[in-house]
Amino acid sequence: MYFCGKYTIMSASLFLIPVTLGETAIPKVLPPYNKAVILSLGHFIVENERTARRFLKQTEPDIDIDVLTFYTLNKHTSKEELSGFLKPIADGHSVGIISEAGCPAIADPGADIVAIAQQKNIRVIPLVGPSSILLALMASGFNGQSFAFQGYLPIDNDQRIKTLKNLELRVYSENQTQLFIETPYRNGKLVEDILKTCKPATKLCIAADITLESEFIKTKSIMEWKKQIPELSKRPCIFALYK
Amino acid sequence: MYFCGKYTIMSASLFLIPVTLGETAIPKVLPPYNKAVILSLGHFIVENERTARRFLKQTEPDIDIDVLTFYTLNKHTSKEELSGFLKPIADGHSVGIISEAGCPAIADPGADIVAIAQQKNIRVIPLVGPSSILLALMASGFNGQSFAFQGYLPIDNDQRIKTLKNLELRVYSENQTQLFIETPYRNGKLVEDILKTCKPATKLCIAADITLESEFIKTKSIMEWKKQIPELSKRPCIFALYK
Repeated sequence: MYFCGKYTIMSASLFLIPVTLGETAIPKVLPPYNKAVILSLGHFIVENERTARRFLKQTEPDIDIDVLTFYTLNKHTSKEELSGFLKPIADGHSVGIISEAGCPAIADPGADIVAIAQQKNIRVIPLVGPSSILLALMASGFNGQSFAFQGYLPIDNDQRIKTLKNLELRVYSENQTQLFIETPYRNGKLVEDILKTCKPATKLCIAADITLESEFIKTKSIMEWKKQIPELSKRPCIFALYK
Repeated sequence: MYFCGKYTIMSASLFLIPVTLGETAIPKVLPPYNKAVILSLGHFIVENERTARRFLKQTEPDIDIDVLTFYTLNKHTSKEELSGFLKPIADGHSVGIISEAGCPAIADPGADIVAIAQQKNIRVIPLVGPSSILLALMASGFNGQSFAFQGYLPIDNDQRIKTLKNLELRVYSENQTQLFIETPYRNGKLVEDILKTCKPATKLCIAADITLESEFIKTKSIMEWKKQIPELSKRPCIFALYK
């Protein structure tokens, strides 16, 4: 057991460390506790070492980055390598996973390492931070008692239309809010596809630039959206459908 | 436009204000920005005035609660009353919705008032806070690129077993993590039902007391859970199924 600021933490653990969603001040979206945890760690699993270093410097300008060990996690990392990243925990040192944006293991490769940690019976401690999916759902006014996040829709046009129709069906048959994302430069095309595929009365929430100065979260019916579509290219967006 | 601590906020808006998940220090789970927002508001929509006052006092012991206006939101509140709660915004005063636990409008009645705000073209601003659903998903090691929260399962035994089978089917057919909750005193019964209904190799994550000192988040196969089941009665839990 060791102390981390005012907080007591038991045994070596895997901490899941969220980051900001783009250019936001850290106190706007991250609890002070996260900083206390970060400053207690010497080992970090990251997707991109450069952006992780930048985040650590933002968290604490006086941090001595050179004494820290970084392990790079991406889709090419083998399962054996992943397992090795958790070695410090066996030696009594906690490890942190830092996401590229938002919360680790939600729509990013962190989930694989968490799965290995769970198999190894390592304690996994998730820290609070901004999730664009959850923030969009909160602000949409849609059903928060039943919802699904579908990730990216298929790129193939027919598949994509079919998927949109199925999601809309599930909105009505299961009262379930359906959330999904798109690569920012294709946001405009996705909105077009939604507007031409879904029923006029179905509601669409478009949530762009969540937690940023330019945040835009708006729910309208398909019919209303057809009158005016916001400019969404290059803006990270969450889309949600409900009735 | 007015200033709120170091942050600038445009026009009167509806703020969605998360709270702690039980007895946790505020700096552990809430960003400093939330306090700045709270101290700038004079109108709060709450589920329970007593717990909301307590949360505000915890946020800022010197807060003058007597000058604040509270509007009580529960399942008996009519749509007309709800609409009236947003009246201060038309007069230029922002309003906050304070949840009973976690994030407003996720698995609580706040979503109805957000829907009305969206219809009235009021800006809705969600603040970051702890969501037991999202934290459980992060720490489960399960698929975070596709997941669904199903709320409560049916109470009727046959319906419940059928629902569990359908959710397990969706785990395999759609690679979708399935999350759900239960009233704490029935947690034990739900785990029994899961263990007797799902395949031995299917994985179950049990996440109890999230963000509390007694936090317990563990993923095992159904087969492994059968060897030992943790005591879960009276502990708020999230359950997740995946393969």
